Amino acid sequence: MKPIKVKILGTGKYLPKQAVTAQELDIKLGCSPGWVAKKSGVDVRYFVTDETASYMGAQAVTDAVAAAGLTMKDIDCIVCASAIFEQPIPATAVLIQRELGLQWSGIPSFDINATCLSFLVGLDTMSCLIAAGKYRHVVLVSTEVASAGINWEQLESSILFGDGAAAVVLGPSNDGEASGILSSRIETYSAGADFSEIRGGGTRFPPRHYNERTRSEYLFDMDGHKIFKMVSKLLPDFMERLMGPTQSRIKDFHRVIPHQGSAMAMRLLQKKLGITDTQLLNIIADYGNTISASIPLALHEGISRGEIHRGDRLAIIGMAAGVSLGGMILDY
Amino acid sequence: MKPIKVKILGTGKYLPKQAVTAQELDIKLGCSPGWVAKKSGVDVRYFVTDETASYMGAQAVTDAVAAAGLTMKDIDCIVCASAIFEQPIPATAVLIQRELGLQWSGIPSFDINATCLSFLVGLDTMSCLIAAGKYRHVVLVSTEVASAGINWEQLESSILFGDGAAAVVLGPSNDGEASGILSSRIETYSAGADFSEIRGGGTRFPPRHYNERTRSEYLFDMDGHKIFKMVSKLLPDFMERLMGPTQSRIKDFHRVIPHQGSAMAMRLLQKKLGITDTQLLNIIADYGNTISASIPLALHEGISRGEIHRGDRLAIIGMAAGVSLGGMILDY
Repeated sequence: MKPIKVKILGTGKYLPKQAVTAQELDIKLGCSPGWVAKKSGVDVRYFVTDETASYMGAQAVTDAVAAAGLTMKDIDCIVCASAIFEQPIPATAVLIQRELGLQWSGIPSFDINATCLSFLVGLDTMSCLIAAGKYRHVVLVSTEVASAGINWEQLESSILFGDGAAAVVLGPSNDGEASGILSSRIETYSAGADFSEIRGGGTRFPPRHYNERTRSEYLFDMDGHKIFKMVSKLLPDFMERLMGPTQSRIKDFHRVIPHQGSAMAMRLLQKKLGITDTQLLNIIADYGNTISASIPLALHEGISRGEIHRGDRLAIIGMAAGVSLGGMILDY
Repeated sequence: MKPIKVKILGTGKYLPKQAVTAQELDIKLGCSPGWVAKKSGVDVRYFVTDETASYMGAQAVTDAVAAAGLTMKDIDCIVCASAIFEQPIPATAVLIQRELGLQWSGIPSFDINATCLSFLVGLDTMSCLIAAGKYRHVVLVSTEVASAGINWEQLESSILFGDGAAAVVLGPSNDGEASGILSSRIETYSAGADFSEIRGGGTRFPPRHYNERTRSEYLFDMDGHKIFKMVSKLLPDFMERLMGPTQSRIKDFHRVIPHQGSAMAMRLLQKKLGITDTQLLNIIADYGNTISASIPLALHEGISRGEIHRGDRLAIIGMAAGVSLGGMILDY
């Protein structure tokens, strides 16, 4: 495949006003001091108070569009690439369009969902529409209120998550510009479909079945051990298939941007693939696992902090409920 | 824009075992005999008993892949293009992959959501990935358990819906083949975001807030009058923008496939655009409004009944919660 000539023109983020530290969670959960920070690797995460997913998404979009040196008039499509929706109907992208004050703009607005890999799948998908000339400037936004679905009785998962939003403006890469996607790949193995779930809230267990006895069905449930085992087995061959067409090796990447699932998951990835500390973009201590927003948030932070420069070769690697593995090699 | 060289290779469907007639609803709702049929235009719809969205989806996919003369080994991507998910996590496409027995296939599986226009947005989006050579054969499946979200106290909307699934296999159109997408367009006007909603079940009103007082928040709520008014105003210009690039007029279409929202909505569309009875593919009496499945189901029925032939020029036109308008002109 030829590189897909697209370019990340700007990035943005929004974090809720309320910061929640590991120390506060130690107290909330009755753990010994320092346990949450040690176990999760998350020093602080942010939880919404009055913010909604669409509000956070709109803030991140505004930020990203400004960073791209554009205005909303330049945007041809709004894709919300999140795991969890604000309302079942309409799509969250519609609610973000409304928050942006673009009610009569007609800008096509829809959602793409691959849980934690929604952003990567959205980027992979929408890049082809830009390359085809269907849209010129697409905004991809991931916005998550993880705190609404945390099961505080499941220690392992509850201490990982944070709320937040991040957005990217994607546009064409002009002739002579290095920016482009060299390779991308998504693989889904539903043998692990029940390793990471929220079972209730859709048509299988509608909200009307909610009660004190069934409440855990409506909250996040994860078996981290099973996911790690499955991913460890699948990852090496997956990476070969991702990198093969570009003839690149891990050492060729200026930065590797992993899904910030957990400190442990990132250590596994780093060890398994031989990623150096300098290469790894690790922001989990500052934000926790913000589900689909974690990859674009890490990308945004890398760019903002001056760790990612134009022309750098980046690898994005992540895993999601499914179990899905996803990766992309791109020149920023 | 040049035509996108893709081809609908096969279609399939699944309808639940349980048929529910207008007469039965007259009794259930305490209406006078004949009222439901007259008001909704729906003689019969199907409601799930033990079927899940992923089960129905898998059946429709199997049907479509066989109709395309392919096997699941030929499928490179599974996109579930539905309004309502089976579980919040993982994506419904993952659960369909599992139902198909493809747990270890690695076939990328994710969801695209634009409520009633999910199928059209999915078709529009994934056609660019096929044209780019990213995937060869994509299966798009819309599967809806509308019955889980019906508010039987809202007469206007409750009598319209039915459950069901439909799928399409999309592949490249070879040189010399007429098949292709000539024009497509989606416009979203979130000024109408609250005209058609399920407010509860996501992060804004999580399932834990469900109780007898809040129950209607977790069910479908529609103001048909406001939608009709908005769509009537927007539709003529929208159609000009859709048809303009192809220089076609309504009379040039062999068949027009509308979203089967309601008999009234289709009458409005027909009158407003001057679509003849022969052109209009109207299956609402047989299935009701199956949300996102309604367009691919109508397409499937048109092909199965011999009303759509290879090379026919088709127009797909629909509207969705958002409010979004969507259209596509394609040579089958």
